[in-house]
Amino acid sequence: MTIYEADWICPVAAPSIRRGAIAVDGGRLRDVGPAESIQHIGGARRVRFPGCAIIPGFVNAHAHLELTVLRGFLENRSFMDWILGLVQAKYQFLQYDAMRTSAEFGALEMLRAGVTAVGEVMDLGMSWDAMREFGLQGVAYQEVFGPADSVASESLAGLRTKVDRLRRDETETLRIGASPHAPFTVSKTLYEATRDFARSNRLPMTAHIAESRDELLLVRDGAGPFAEGQRNRGIEVTPRHCTPVTYLDALDLLGPDMLLIHVIEIDDQDLDRLQNSGVFVVHCPKSNAKLGHRTARVSEMQERGVTVALGTDSMASNNSVDMFEEMRAAVFHQRMLTGRIQALDAARAFRMATIDGAKCLGLEDHIGSLTPGKRADFVVIDLSGVSTQPVYDPIETMVYSAARGDVKATFLAGREVDLDDSELLKQAAAIRERLLGAV
Amino acid sequence: MTIYEADWICPVAAPSIRRGAIAVDGGRLRDVGPAESIQHIGGARRVRFPGCAIIPGFVNAHAHLELTVLRGFLENRSFMDWILGLVQAKYQFLQYDAMRTSAEFGALEMLRAGVTAVGEVMDLGMSWDAMREFGLQGVAYQEVFGPADSVASESLAGLRTKVDRLRRDETETLRIGASPHAPFTVSKTLYEATRDFARSNRLPMTAHIAESRDELLLVRDGAGPFAEGQRNRGIEVTPRHCTPVTYLDALDLLGPDMLLIHVIEIDDQDLDRLQNSGVFVVHCPKSNAKLGHRTARVSEMQERGVTVALGTDSMASNNSVDMFEEMRAAVFHQRMLTGRIQALDAARAFRMATIDGAKCLGLEDHIGSLTPGKRADFVVIDLSGVSTQPVYDPIETMVYSAARGDVKATFLAGREVDLDDSELLKQAAAIRERLLGAV
Repeated sequence: MTIYEADWICPVAAPSIRRGAIAVDGGRLRDVGPAESIQHIGGARRVRFPGCAIIPGFVNAHAHLELTVLRGFLENRSFMDWILGLVQAKYQFLQYDAMRTSAEFGALEMLRAGVTAVGEVMDLGMSWDAMREFGLQGVAYQEVFGPADSVASESLAGLRTKVDRLRRDETETLRIGASPHAPFTVSKTLYEATRDFARSNRLPMTAHIAESRDELLLVRDGAGPFAEGQRNRGIEVTPRHCTPVTYLDALDLLGPDMLLIHVIEIDDQDLDRLQNSGVFVVHCPKSNAKLGHRTARVSEMQERGVTVALGTDSMASNNSVDMFEEMRAAVFHQRMLTGRIQALDAARAFRMATIDGAKCLGLEDHIGSLTPGKRADFVVIDLSGVSTQPVYDPIETMVYSAARGDVKATFLAGREVDLDDSELLKQAAAIRERLLGAV
Repeated sequence: MTIYEADWICPVAAPSIRRGAIAVDGGRLRDVGPAESIQHIGGARRVRFPGCAIIPGFVNAHAHLELTVLRGFLENRSFMDWILGLVQAKYQFLQYDAMRTSAEFGALEMLRAGVTAVGEVMDLGMSWDAMREFGLQGVAYQEVFGPADSVASESLAGLRTKVDRLRRDETETLRIGASPHAPFTVSKTLYEATRDFARSNRLPMTAHIAESRDELLLVRDGAGPFAEGQRNRGIEVTPRHCTPVTYLDALDLLGPDMLLIHVIEIDDQDLDRLQNSGVFVVHCPKSNAKLGHRTARVSEMQERGVTVALGTDSMASNNSVDMFEEMRAAVFHQRMLTGRIQALDAARAFRMATIDGAKCLGLEDHIGSLTPGKRADFVVIDLSGVSTQPVYDPIETMVYSAARGDVKATFLAGREVDLDDSELLKQAAAIRERLLGAV
């Protein structure tokens, strides 16, 4: 058994503890409380972190680890052009080996930033191995694409093959899921086939939805750049005469096994649908803003009891993994949107980045808070420096003043991660040369 | 002479240079160019920063150093309550000695974050000494308050005394200015008196304007919480039947000697007034959003030729000094506001945080870019880590991926600053106890 003491313990599921401690044994949290109350356990090793806070590992509920090396490669493009650039980079320039390096680089970066679990959406499937190698927990959702109904069965067969290969290595906190990508890449038939496959195999699902105005135009009116693009490829476009969320609801895709990504272009009826279906939502404030989308109506969803997590999205759109910055962006955008200080506060943002993320991934029994019995995935944040002092409340300080650079240590199942980045940095530099040579 | 080499030199006034160097002598920049072109200078000491970018010191064009220790002390309050809390903390709980410590703490924090010049707005005047002590450059604007016409002459006398005391220590790049605080604290008579005093003494001015809906209500309609607050204090409230910016224009306060702060609640006619007057604007995206205000129409101002700088505002509202994060918040908020990727990009945001800031402070002949002849105030940014690699363009990387933690070194007039924070951290902790004991 090891006891870790810090100036603050922030269990999330309970109030923060001044001069607290956690006891860890066998990779699990055994006790959480004031430092003196855990004094009596004899023979335990004691590790002290003065000036620090201990928090549960962050849950980054939406990411694409495979795209990490594209950070900064696709700037100043409209959403449509950005997607086309992404597809070209993935399939023409990078391929399997580079995608694997990219996913490993992303996994290492997450752990450095205090993220111990992700809602990962992978295409080529490289993320699964990278997550296992680095010990990153969460759900890896295998993406499936196919905008024409005619390719649905082929797409589903590919999904089935990939999922079957990976499932045998699942653990309690590292799970496989399925992800029908988005309305502009998934036909009605493929949505339904993926739904049936996921439900019969008890796979959790995630899907990008209602991210952009262009997507709304496609779904509702069968118009706009996505519709034109599909028609140019000979794909029939069917206007659904409803919002993207309502469309998914009609396809019976909204339920407690679904984590919706983005959910920006919604109407008031969609809020009802979210509330009544038990569906989960992940909000990516920085990625959305950078791509010129609006911000999601997070406060209204939360007021209706919808659980909303936080995600960075990929480094191809966000460019950084910093859950502190993501939390404050979420607060700032809600306050801007509503004009109300009460719309979102630090305490709720902190829960969004931890326990609410665990709920959205269906892993709340195992991770997301410092609760005895849960996995000992925790992070030490140094709050002793000039950028964070003085501290009136550790959660306010972390949400509004801390940054990834203040992450002092990351623990997975009670072991501090020690990451050598030198080889990956070299490989990333080589991928950069390959990409620059290709364009 | 010393030559500093880095993987990238970003002069701002010229394109970024791969494998570049700057030559520094006598506290000034003597040469800027490719590393090999500066090889020939004999006898110069060479310092290499592999994996780094050298940029001009950031200009943080709006700050209140005196309020630094209030970081996190006034959370979750409406704007009006936040201001009342601020006033109470300043005058009842802190007073002179703590305000001096707070200003020193803020100056140290700025330099650590790569900020070498600030547009500082000070009340008790402690910032001036802190800036001189730490070598921070910029303009320190002395605030003046007085919502009732009857106190205008007394307020002006106070301003005159403070300014006279400080002006004898001005230098080429550390100047004194004057700041009529805001429409809810400054009467028409005091605005005019401050204007005449500033112009006759060639003092630059700055003023908070059009920050909140409540301020708009006060100025335009003589209504809302600020109006009620003034009436409760027996102060006559006069509706001006126009926007705050138009009100300042009617008072002949818009001109090239004025730096307007915030400028959110404006109409289309105000955009014309800004354009035609030659006035400058400083945008504080994070502070505005956190306090539940909207974001300024920055892109539209810039399209009309108005120079817009970036500011963090005080740690009582922003909670962190990170000009990288401030730059990306500016980009994200403009893209959210307009739905256009083109609204603001990394290159422009980088200029806003450097040369445009220098222009707004009237110091562009001396600082704000790496230009031979200017002061050698520069910053070394480490871009070699996992959070910033790979680098396709150093400015995109800095704006979207770097953070204060990547600031490797800050140079003032060619000397690297070496800041001992231990004593100030102790004093800040003591002020925290005092504040917590007072409430």
